[in-house]
Amino acid sequence: MPTSTYDIVILGAGSGGYACALRAAQLGLTVALVEEDKVGGTCLHRGCIPTKALLHTAEVADMARDSERYGVLASLEGVNMTKVNTYKDGVVARLYKGLQGLVKAADTVELVTGTGRLTAKDTVTVGDRELTGRTVVLATGSYAKTLPDVQIGGRIMTSDQALQLEEVPRHAIVLGGGVIGVEFASALRSFGAEVTVVEAMDRLVAMEDPAVSKTVERAYKKRGMKIRTGVKVTGTSQDDQGVRVELEGGDVLEGDLLLVAVGRGPRTEGMGYEEVGVELDRGFVTTDERLRTSVEGVRAVGDLVPGPQLAHRGFAHGIFVAEDLAGLEPAPVEDSLVPKVTYSDPEIASVGLSEQQARERWGEAVSTYEYNLGGNGKSQILGTAGFVKLVRSGPDGPVVGVHMVGARMGEQVGEAQLIVGWEALPEDVAQFLHAHPTQNEALGEAHLALAGKPLHAHG
Amino acid sequence: MPTSTYDIVILGAGSGGYACALRAAQLGLTVALVEEDKVGGTCLHRGCIPTKALLHTAEVADMARDSERYGVLASLEGVNMTKVNTYKDGVVARLYKGLQGLVKAADTVELVTGTGRLTAKDTVTVGDRELTGRTVVLATGSYAKTLPDVQIGGRIMTSDQALQLEEVPRHAIVLGGGVIGVEFASALRSFGAEVTVVEAMDRLVAMEDPAVSKTVERAYKKRGMKIRTGVKVTGTSQDDQGVRVELEGGDVLEGDLLLVAVGRGPRTEGMGYEEVGVELDRGFVTTDERLRTSVEGVRAVGDLVPGPQLAHRGFAHGIFVAEDLAGLEPAPVEDSLVPKVTYSDPEIASVGLSEQQARERWGEAVSTYEYNLGGNGKSQILGTAGFVKLVRSGPDGPVVGVHMVGARMGEQVGEAQLIVGWEALPEDVAQFLHAHPTQNEALGEAHLALAGKPLHAHG
Repeated sequence: MPTSTYDIVILGAGSGGYACALRAAQLGLTVALVEEDKVGGTCLHRGCIPTKALLHTAEVADMARDSERYGVLASLEGVNMTKVNTYKDGVVARLYKGLQGLVKAADTVELVTGTGRLTAKDTVTVGDRELTGRTVVLATGSYAKTLPDVQIGGRIMTSDQALQLEEVPRHAIVLGGGVIGVEFASALRSFGAEVTVVEAMDRLVAMEDPAVSKTVERAYKKRGMKIRTGVKVTGTSQDDQGVRVELEGGDVLEGDLLLVAVGRGPRTEGMGYEEVGVELDRGFVTTDERLRTSVEGVRAVGDLVPGPQLAHRGFAHGIFVAEDLAGLEPAPVEDSLVPKVTYSDPEIASVGLSEQQARERWGEAVSTYEYNLGGNGKSQILGTAGFVKLVRSGPDGPVVGVHMVGARMGEQVGEAQLIVGWEALPEDVAQFLHAHPTQNEALGEAHLALAGKPLHAHG
Repeated sequence: MPTSTYDIVILGAGSGGYACALRAAQLGLTVALVEEDKVGGTCLHRGCIPTKALLHTAEVADMARDSERYGVLASLEGVNMTKVNTYKDGVVARLYKGLQGLVKAADTVELVTGTGRLTAKDTVTVGDRELTGRTVVLATGSYAKTLPDVQIGGRIMTSDQALQLEEVPRHAIVLGGGVIGVEFASALRSFGAEVTVVEAMDRLVAMEDPAVSKTVERAYKKRGMKIRTGVKVTGTSQDDQGVRVELEGGDVLEGDLLLVAVGRGPRTEGMGYEEVGVELDRGFVTTDERLRTSVEGVRAVGDLVPGPQLAHRGFAHGIFVAEDLAGLEPAPVEDSLVPKVTYSDPEIASVGLSEQQARERWGEAVSTYEYNLGGNGKSQILGTAGFVKLVRSGPDGPVVGVHMVGARMGEQVGEAQLIVGWEALPEDVAQFLHAHPTQNEALGEAHLALAGKPLHAHG
C-alpha cells in the first residue's frame, strides 16, 4: 500500500478539520485533509449556512406579510420552495467555491477525497492509500439523531431532508425544542405552515436562560404556533395522507410532516477509533483541554468532542490544534466563552454563564440586570420585543454572562463575548458610547444600568 | 420676578439636556430642565428616530421588491406615505411617552415649559420666571441649515419637512451627500422615487474612509440613483410643476422635490449667550474638554459644541457634566471614540481614526486590513456587499480605527468601539470566538487576519 507522510492527517474536512488544515499550512506544516464528501462539512452543506438562508427567506416573507404596518403595500402570495432552494443552494455554492479556493491555495495541504479510517494511531487509510502523520486529528463531526423507535423516511425527516422540501407543508410537527427545532419551526411558520413544537423538557431552548425561553414561547404563541412542552412522544406513524404523533397522556397530533430535531450525535462509529484505543463516552471522543485523546498523537476537534456543537467552536478547535502542534502554546478553547446564537424569530444570543451557573459558583453575591427592548428605539422601529440580561459575579465583579433575545439580537453577541472574554466590569463598558439608535445601544444601556447609572431604563 | 434656585439649570431638553438632568437627579442634584417644545428634542422628534423609522420602511419595501430572489412571492404595489407617517409617528409617540415617564420619575428635576434665555451667567429666564443655578448648561442643539440663496418652503425643504411627506416624489433631488443626504436618498429611492444626489465635495460621505465612499457610490448607482459629486449648485427655483436646480457648468436638474441636506448649524442665536459673554466660534459654543465655556459656571453639551453632531455624544456630554458637577471626576468624552452610523443601504459604521488620521500621527508604521464581506456567510445570505477595514497604529500597536460598510453593519459598531476604546491588539480580539454565521464574524475574521492568522480571507 502506498504510504504518504505528513505532519498532520486530518480525518474530516468540516469546520474543525479545514480550519486546522488552513492554520497548519500557515505555520508551515504539511497536512493530509481527508474528506469523503465535500469540504465544508455539515455547517456549509447541511447546517448553519443553508438553515440561515431559509431563515432569511422567512424574514423576507414575514416582512411582506407585515408590510402594511410600515406603510408598504405588498401582498404575500406564498413561498415557492423551488426558488427558495435555488437561492439557498446558490449561497452554499458561492461559499463552497470560496472555501475550495482557500484549501487549494494552502500549498502544504493535500485534499484526499475518499472515506478514511483510523487504522493505527498515526495512520488513516483511504482506499489503497495509507496516510501517516506525527499527529492524527479526528474531525468527523456529527449527524442528525432520531429517537429509538422513529424511522426516518418519507414524511418523517431530520434537518438533512427538511433542507430540501419541495413544498411548504400544511402542518409541520417539530419534535424537539432545541436550537434546530425552534429554528425550523420559526422558518416553516414564516413560510405559512401551521407548526406544533413538541419538547420533552419543560421549556423551549432549555439550554438558555429561563427568561429567554419564556420570551420565545410567548412570541411563538403570538405567531400562531402551538407549543407542547413537558411531554414525550410515545409513537409515530405515517401514510399517504400524513403523519401521526402520539403523545404521553393520549393526545394525538396529525400533520403532514414530522421533523425530528432531537440533537446531533457524534460521528465516531465504524471509523476505527475504538479499535485503535481512542476512548469514547456515549459515542463522543473524550479529550483533555488541549484536545488530546486517550491515544498519544491523536487529537479530536469539533462536534465529536463533548460541548456545544457549533461551527465556530470547531474553527477554534482546529486552529488551536494547529498552533499547539506548531509550538505556539495557544490558550485552550473554553466552552463557556463560545457565543451561541439561535437564528429564530425572535433571535437568541448568549455567552458566558447563566444566572444559575453563576449562582452555583458565587452564591448570593451574583447580581443580574435585565434591560427591556421596549426602551430601545431601534427595537421599537423593528417592532420586536425582548431583552438583554447581564449576569455579574458580585458587587465589584465582572460581567460573566450575557443573555439576549429579540429580532436580530444575534449580531450583538460580538460585543458581548468581548465583555465576558475580557472580564469587563459594567463600568468598563459604560464609559464608552453606544450608537443611537441601534439595537447595540441596548447592550450599552444594560451596562449603564448595572454600573448604577441607567439612562433609558424603566422600572 | 419669581426666582427659583437649582443646582443646575439646563437650557434645552434634547439628548444632551435630558441625559444631564436624569444623571444629575441620580446624583442628588436639583435641576430645572427648560424646553420650549417637547422633551427629546431633534433626535426623538425630527432626527434619529423618525428617520430610522423611514429607513426601516425602506428596508421593508426593498425586501418586498426583491422578494422573489429569496423564493418569496410578493408584489410591491407601492408605499403609502400616510401609513408610513402613522407608523413613524407611533414609534416616536411610544418613545416620547417613555421618556416623559423617566423625566417625571426623576423627582429632583423640574421640567419648565417655555422659551428660555440666558440672562446672566447663572440665570435662565423663562417668561416671568427666573431660574438660577450654580451651573447653567447650554443644550439648545442644532437646526437644519440651508444654503445662503436657497429659501426653504414649498418643494424646497430640509429634513424637518421631508419627514412629513404626503406622497412619494417622482424625482427627488438631494442637495448634500453627507449622512442626512445619503440617508434620505436611500429611503426615497426605496420608496420608489428617482433620486439624484448633488454634493460639492468629490465624494459621498466625505467624513468616512474613501473606500467606504466608493462602496456606497457603487451601491447607489446599482440602485439606480444618480450621483453628481464635485459640483456646486448655482441656483434653485420652483413652481407648481416642480423644482429646478442649476449646477456649475450649466447642467440643470428638474425634479419635484429638493431636499437641502447641507448639515446642521448650532442653535445659539438670540438666546442671550453672547450678551452674557459666552464665546462662540462660527455660532458654535467653544468649550474645553470638560465642556466649560468661556463663562465660569456655564457649560455646553451636544450639537452646539464643535464635533460630531450625534445624539449619543449628547447623552455622553450630559452625563459627563452631571458627574463632573457631582465631583465624580469622569473622563472627558473623546470625539474620536464616538461611534458613527449612517443608516443608509448599505449601512456605514465607523469609530476611531481614519487611515489618514492614523498616518498623520504614526506615519509609515500604520497598517490596515480590509476584510471583504464576500467571504462572510451571513452577508452572502443577506445579499450585501461591503467590508470591514481595520487601522492599526503600528506593527505591535493597537487597532485605532474600524470602518465598515454593508447592509446592517451599523450594529457591529458596538464591538468595534470597545476594541478601539480599550486599545485592543488584533490578537486580543482574535483569541475570542465570533459566532458563525453572523455578520459579526466579519469583524472577527478581520482581526484574525490582522493578527496574522486569516481563516476565511481571500487574497
